[in-house]
Amino acid sequence: MALPQGFRLAAAAADFRGKGKTRDDLALVISERPAAAAGVFTTNLFRAAPVLVAQENLARAPEGIRGILINSGQANACTGEEGLAHCRETLDMAAKAAGVDAGSLLPASTGVIGALMDMDKWRAAMPDLAASLGHADLERFARAIMTTDAFPKLAEAELALDGGTVRLAGVAKGAGMICPNMATMISLVLCDADVDAAAWRSMFRRAADATFNRVSVDGDTSTNDSLFGLANGASGIRVTEGELPLLEEALTDILGDLAYMLVKDGEGATKVMHISVTGAASDADAERVARTVGHSQLVKTAMFGRDPNWGRIVAAAGRSGATFDPDRLRVTLCGVTLFHDGRPTTEDFDALLREPLDGTDVTLDISLGDGPGAARLLASDLSHAYVSLNADYRS
Amino acid sequence: MALPQGFRLAAAAADFRGKGKTRDDLALVISERPAAAAGVFTTNLFRAAPVLVAQENLARAPEGIRGILINSGQANACTGEEGLAHCRETLDMAAKAAGVDAGSLLPASTGVIGALMDMDKWRAAMPDLAASLGHADLERFARAIMTTDAFPKLAEAELALDGGTVRLAGVAKGAGMICPNMATMISLVLCDADVDAAAWRSMFRRAADATFNRVSVDGDTSTNDSLFGLANGASGIRVTEGELPLLEEALTDILGDLAYMLVKDGEGATKVMHISVTGAASDADAERVARTVGHSQLVKTAMFGRDPNWGRIVAAAGRSGATFDPDRLRVTLCGVTLFHDGRPTTEDFDALLREPLDGTDVTLDISLGDGPGAARLLASDLSHAYVSLNADYRS
Repeated sequence: MALPQGFRLAAAAADFRGKGKTRDDLALVISERPAAAAGVFTTNLFRAAPVLVAQENLARAPEGIRGILINSGQANACTGEEGLAHCRETLDMAAKAAGVDAGSLLPASTGVIGALMDMDKWRAAMPDLAASLGHADLERFARAIMTTDAFPKLAEAELALDGGTVRLAGVAKGAGMICPNMATMISLVLCDADVDAAAWRSMFRRAADATFNRVSVDGDTSTNDSLFGLANGASGIRVTEGELPLLEEALTDILGDLAYMLVKDGEGATKVMHISVTGAASDADAERVARTVGHSQLVKTAMFGRDPNWGRIVAAAGRSGATFDPDRLRVTLCGVTLFHDGRPTTEDFDALLREPLDGTDVTLDISLGDGPGAARLLASDLSHAYVSLNADYRS
Repeated sequence: MALPQGFRLAAAAADFRGKGKTRDDLALVISERPAAAAGVFTTNLFRAAPVLVAQENLARAPEGIRGILINSGQANACTGEEGLAHCRETLDMAAKAAGVDAGSLLPASTGVIGALMDMDKWRAAMPDLAASLGHADLERFARAIMTTDAFPKLAEAELALDGGTVRLAGVAKGAGMICPNMATMISLVLCDADVDAAAWRSMFRRAADATFNRVSVDGDTSTNDSLFGLANGASGIRVTEGELPLLEEALTDILGDLAYMLVKDGEGATKVMHISVTGAASDADAERVARTVGHSQLVKTAMFGRDPNWGRIVAAAGRSGATFDPDRLRVTLCGVTLFHDGRPTTEDFDALLREPLDGTDVTLDISLGDGPGAARLLASDLSHAYVSLNADYRS
């Protein structure tokens, strides 16, 4: 599929990992015209330098963003004032190379926390990055921002509106939340629709909340998590007010696809649990149950072991802090009801669920009663490979 | 050390696991006189039948408890009305055998969740249990209540008061929180001091809060967690009001020792992290940080891998929800300060910490600033063995 119009991509190898220029680790996207920009960032008290600078530039020029500059291999987190100065210097370099204003660029970094960026490598790589502008495709861009990701994550869509067709394209990188010193989740969506900037920002926040904020690999939140959305209007097609829900739906689908890939490629993950909680007294209660179940080490290891262990699911729901009647709880795994009326339903779960639990995607439906509250969560399992990746890396 | 006076212990093999009478799985303690009794129970919405019955009997006869009946191998959790009836029937049997009132006994069960208890096995084992009364020692009692515990957990103390010496003895069983269907933590402390019942109950609650409520193996809370304290006055030594703090200190030491053993014997645990958070705005904020760090899969796997990974500790503190100035955070591992003033202190952590991190006990001191809030937590690490125990058990 063709890129959304008016965007040019670049990638280059700066060797931030010190292993030779064996892979791209720099990526740049430039919009030919100022784009309506949205950003969602980590809620961690520790925000990396690029997060602070991106928030500054977004606040300063919310409708005049011209591009995003991303590096992998060095997180520029916990690097103090020097890290902030380095971050701004990289924007200056890229802005000069691309002929835009440095304040119109948003930075993002992912990699080892605590180390200062190697500015000599940035300087040396800049000519290659500039030369590649307009010549990189979406997959190369997605690969350049990977850290421990097993595969590049990209999603594209076309949306037919009254005025014509607009395009959306997104990339993401994830894996573990801070893996092993990695600072972690970065995603961006490009769109060539001409859309009201305030409407774009609010639909972007809602779409992020419905997707990226509904996944769990290990419950950790990194210092660098950043999610960007640029809508540059280069298609010339104006989104009418009545069409905004269509665009929001397409955007939510793109972010949903990327979020799913993030969980599927979670460190050591072998399964994606699709957790749905319904019938809660409130959405907040439903979310408490979804998160407690999805984060439970015991539930995660049971899924890895293909074990229909309803006791762990029931016990996690019970300690979640949600208010519900234990006798009303119903737990359904891959379509098989394991528990209701306060009791397990049968003894033969292993035979019933052996095959469904062999799959990659596992549905877990939890009903708490007949309240209006509901929540969804995608969660990975917990495997030997997770422990290996996170314990053995530095030994 | 001799048992506290006026208590008789019993143990017997009922074969609840169906593997033959190869080990004790029934335990009974009887006090020769009514004891002041304290109980602390799971906060899970799903409370097993024995928890419900113990709470009933405690409320009905708080100063007249004559004993505690514990079985391992069957949790009697998620068993509905039938499970409640079974639980009461076991108390009737044991009460008859010991010549006490059934309402003066407290039940506790641990083992597989969801299965109904095998009442024939209870009936068949009762003569052996009765015959053993007064002949079992504390270690045999502690072994009878074990599930996946690697070692029996017991602690004893003598306390010299003005009127003479009183004794305390405690046992506990733990391992994983619901392992793999196991419903899990049970502990009891026996004391022969003559102590005001209300004072005993309030010191017991405080001691439990300072010890058992300050440990984390995997963050899960079982349906059966129960903690009992019986003080029967059989020593004839009255604890004066001025001596209450001494008794509380001894009780807290006993529970602290047992809680430490619980973490050390956590499923797959190779290390005990002693986490101390100070300088917080409030105790609640300090506890948020301690629990978020202690429950973090990334911190736990780093400890297992002997990796002084300050980035994971800093990021966990930052996402805990506690309010603090990131530039004031100080992280000290095994006495070595890794992070302060928003930056790591040195690059040579591996060399400095290789040896200390090889030990079983690891201290992690986190200072958030100069506030008055503080909290402590004991937490286990996360190992391959944890995943094996919890994922592979049923395959």
